[in-house]
Amino acid sequence: MRVVVGVDLGGTNIVVGTVTQDGKNVAGVQRRATPAALGPDVVVKHIVGAVRESIAQARCVWGKDIDVIGIGIGSPGPIDTKNGIVVTSPNLRWTNVPLRRLVSEIVDLPATLENDANCAVLGEWWRGAAVGAQIVVGVTIGTGVGGGFVLDGKIFHGASDVAGEFGHMTIDSTGRRCACGNYGCLEAYVSGPAIAKRAIESIEAGAPSSLAQYVDGDLSRITAEEVYLAAKDGDYLAEEVVRDTARLLGAGIANLVNICNPEVVVVCGGVTSAGEKLFRPLREEVARRAFRPAAEACRIVPGTLPGTAGVIGAVASFNLQTTGST
Amino acid sequence: MRVVVGVDLGGTNIVVGTVTQDGKNVAGVQRRATPAALGPDVVVKHIVGAVRESIAQARCVWGKDIDVIGIGIGSPGPIDTKNGIVVTSPNLRWTNVPLRRLVSEIVDLPATLENDANCAVLGEWWRGAAVGAQIVVGVTIGTGVGGGFVLDGKIFHGASDVAGEFGHMTIDSTGRRCACGNYGCLEAYVSGPAIAKRAIESIEAGAPSSLAQYVDGDLSRITAEEVYLAAKDGDYLAEEVVRDTARLLGAGIANLVNICNPEVVVVCGGVTSAGEKLFRPLREEVARRAFRPAAEACRIVPGTLPGTAGVIGAVASFNLQTTGST
Repeated sequence: MRVVVGVDLGGTNIVVGTVTQDGKNVAGVQRRATPAALGPDVVVKHIVGAVRESIAQARCVWGKDIDVIGIGIGSPGPIDTKNGIVVTSPNLRWTNVPLRRLVSEIVDLPATLENDANCAVLGEWWRGAAVGAQIVVGVTIGTGVGGGFVLDGKIFHGASDVAGEFGHMTIDSTGRRCACGNYGCLEAYVSGPAIAKRAIESIEAGAPSSLAQYVDGDLSRITAEEVYLAAKDGDYLAEEVVRDTARLLGAGIANLVNICNPEVVVVCGGVTSAGEKLFRPLREEVARRAFRPAAEACRIVPGTLPGTAGVIGAVASFNLQTTGST
Repeated sequence: MRVVVGVDLGGTNIVVGTVTQDGKNVAGVQRRATPAALGPDVVVKHIVGAVRESIAQARCVWGKDIDVIGIGIGSPGPIDTKNGIVVTSPNLRWTNVPLRRLVSEIVDLPATLENDANCAVLGEWWRGAAVGAQIVVGVTIGTGVGGGFVLDGKIFHGASDVAGEFGHMTIDSTGRRCACGNYGCLEAYVSGPAIAKRAIESIEAGAPSSLAQYVDGDLSRITAEEVYLAAKDGDYLAEEVVRDTARLLGAGIANLVNICNPEVVVVCGGVTSAGEKLFRPLREEVARRAFRPAAEACRIVPGTLPGTAGVIGAVASFNLQTTGST
């Protein structure tokens, strides 16, 4: 049985899984903290350790005779896909790291490198929420906001390998300052930390909320996850923050719908755990803002591969880069 | 010599030209007012009259033996390209008009239909400012704001033939009301009428300006053209309106640059007559707002086929639809 190891390198975690080459089965999923502060060599060691452990576990599940044909890696930051280099990654504090070669040499297997958000969207197209669609836009929401396009089963890279920087789309040209230096970026409103920050600001301004109970009274420990939990439990402020998130994300997604006229927009990341409390007002906002023939042609759905979209997509990207198709 | 007649149908004017099939020469350019209020049949008669006149003039220029092989039509509104139907056009007040068949039957020549903004961008890619680029975004600014994508020499249509509705991109989610019902659309700030309106509002609020002199004191006659003229003449208010236009359009174009990572953004329409007074601050604003590797990969240029981009692009579209390439 031919398998490919998928690596989803993030600023916070490394997730690795061994995947059948058709993307239908995953075994040996590993999750480790990313030791970003210790530099590329240590991160590479951790990746390789996780890859070996994943393969060993996959052999326990599928038997000794699995044939590992390569490693597909997804990484944050602008990537030079062709040369397998992480050009820059603010989260990892890397510049021009030849990640593909570093991993490939140690494990002595062919490897490919692709942007992590592109991998997640490709994974959702291959084996998740967007199967069968020819024009897919994916929005990934986590520490940052990113995304990607899958057109006719291929990632659309753009002129310099950075297409899909949806997080830095302006939705309020005089709005919140973003870490990138711009004002009113989508990321400044709907990233995980921005969602938590909006909730904390409201509580500090006196809004009544049960959110403090979720973090033993320490507001600084509120993350987006607590906001979704409290909203599910019916906390008024948390529900309001989720509705505002839907409205702001809706403005961004309506832009993507107007610009690209996709068949499906897949929303990936922890934000999907907010469920219909988020997706109902989100779809309403997109319908209100977007051009009707574009809105009517487009489904807006949560990703169905939480936790493994990046790993499965990295394997799809390995197939694409080595054989020309998934 | 094989020629194709290009028709650029607008809400205000019909422009028709006879073009060599390679797109390099144009003759017999006709410009007529669009009798939109009189209904599709009258508009079609005017189109056909202009087509015949254009061919007659082209025969005077190029000789009697030119071989007219077809008609390429560009029209506003969501288009059903495959079936040659104008689905709706608010400007023309049309619904489901089979324009391709209506024209083709009368002139007894094959015809094709494509969205007018797509034609303009395709024209600029084929014979204008974006020759040779593989990833082209075009923004068309006139009574409305539209645009299109040309990827690898083909128009990107999207899932329901409406990709490129850049005018209804939100740049200020709580901003100016747009005619579409949404708030803060790019079109509400940088369309020709919106540019004029911003100038008139400032004058009515007491801002000193020489603009009234360009229209014999009748502020209601100020159009975007007068604003560009007055800015060139050094009128302070007009210069400010042009700078604000650059800033607002810059937010929209920075979004397109972040999302699509194009090689070139071509700006088409009367707004290009503002020249460097517009393009210098526009490029600065995009550089300030967009993701650096995307901004650095992208040229932002005025179209070089003012008046005929739509006609030439309609011919390119005829070639694409009938032969598969331009």
